[in-house]
Amino acid sequence: MKPTTPQEACFEAGIKFGTLYHQFAGTPVAPESSDSLAAAMEDAIENQPFCTAVTVDILDEKLRKTLAEQSADYTELTGEYMEVELIIEYDGCTVAASMAMDGDYPRMQVDDVDG
Amino acid sequence: MKPTTPQEACFEAGIKFGTLYHQFAGTPVAPESSDSLAAAMEDAIENQPFCTAVTVDILDEKLRKTLAEQSADYTELTGEYMEVELIIEYDGCTVAASMAMDGDYPRMQVDDVDG
Amino acid sequence: MKPTTPQEACFEAGIKFGTLYHQFAGTPVAPESSDSLAAAMEDAIENQPFCTAVTVDILDEKLRKTLAEQSADYTELTGEYMEVELIIEYDGCTVAASMAMDGDYPRMQVDDVDG
Amino acid sequence: MKPTTPQEACFEAGIKFGTLYHQFAGTPVAPESSDSLAAAMEDAIENQPFCTAVTVDILDEKLRKTLAEQSADYTELTGEYMEVELIIEYDGCTVAASMAMDGDYPRMQVDDVDG
Repeated sequence: MKPTTPQEACFEAGIKFGTLYHQFAGTPVAPESSDSLAAAMEDAIENQPFCTAVTVDILDEKLRKTLAEQSADYTELTGEYMEVELIIEYDGCTVAASMAMDGDYPRMQVDDVDG
Repeated sequence: MKPTTPQEACFEAGIKFGTLYHQFAGTPVAPESSDSLAAAMEDAIENQPFCTAVTVDILDEKLRKTLAEQSADYTELTGEYMEVELIIEYDGCTVAASMAMDGDYPRMQVDDVDG
Repeated sequence: MKPTTPQEACFEAGIKFGTLYHQFAGTPVAPESSDSLAAAMEDAIENQPFCTAVTVDILDEKLRKTLAEQSADYTELTGEYMEVELIIEYDGCTVAASMAMDGDYPRMQVDDVDG
Repeated sequence: MKPTTPQEACFEAGIKFGTLYHQFAGTPVAPESSDSLAAAMEDAIENQPFCTAVTVDILDEKLRKTLAEQSADYTELTGEYMEVELIIEYDGCTVAASMAMDGDYPRMQVDDVDG
């Protein structure tokens, strides 16, 4: 069957998460540069259609822990170091979705569908 | 409200498209290297959860047209040069989704939801 | 033969350009989000070893021209829309390198080697 | 001073490594998909100017070790899982460069400059 509007809204939310993760994973990052990276990620993804708000939290404490255990003074951004929330508004339907670590896996999930 | 199973399945389909596009966009490509790139894209995305099939078609004719009009003998992969279909199987629900150019925009869409 | 120090410094400069370009090419961008993206690119690459300064200029006028000619209100970052300068300090050798369009090709080049 | 030909050749080698790493880091990978990914990486980078040969070895044993220790049955490509060699031929100068782990850091280096 053809998708419903809420199904399409969830599809759009998924696109934004895949984009955000795979565009920016691998970026050299340290606590000193995490704020500008988080801001750029939010602004970049908010350009995409139907995406009204993105919040990226880069976890400086986890970065510091990694840097203390390795030789280099920066690392590469992965899901371990970020938490993300975003809102999609699609044809009257609002979807809230988020990403955070679930054990050792960066879990992306739909939290709420309204409309 | 909490998402339904088909809504979650559509979210998963969206993740795969965002991943595929933003992982591989920018890759140096020419007709001679398009087959190996398409194969790698298919295999990479099929690693992701719930993704049972991915078909990537890199459009060699469009690549050749671009190369004929520019100085370099390769270009960077963008949505203009590929068509993609994928299948998600999520908790009994099957979603078919695709990407192709819609005028000047690489449109990702859900084609069918079953279950 | 083994590389000299200035040769290694030039190698390091090249790494930074390849990183910058292929990490961030494909990012959704519009004039409203270009400042935060440029800042993040500078900070990210300055994390890398031996890189003491990076200046990224995203060309808003070119972005506006592209947006005026297409249906979407954002585009994807490519070399057409940015100019970059960076400085490498490697074992007493300073290298200045830059990227800008050379006709239709984003040319990366070493401008100066000192030491 | 203006760069010499061997310095420019080393700059070109660096560009290729930065490109290869940051284009493909983050790609979903498992031992079953590592061959197609390695082939695509080689072919993609060989498109770039002056790059006459690229060899990518994705380390399946390391992948298997990681997969045995985590919940997901794939991981993301990082420097830990690959070894790369490439040859640049630039204006009569040949550069051989490589990437491999040096302790916990993916070290890119110039191995030989001839000409």
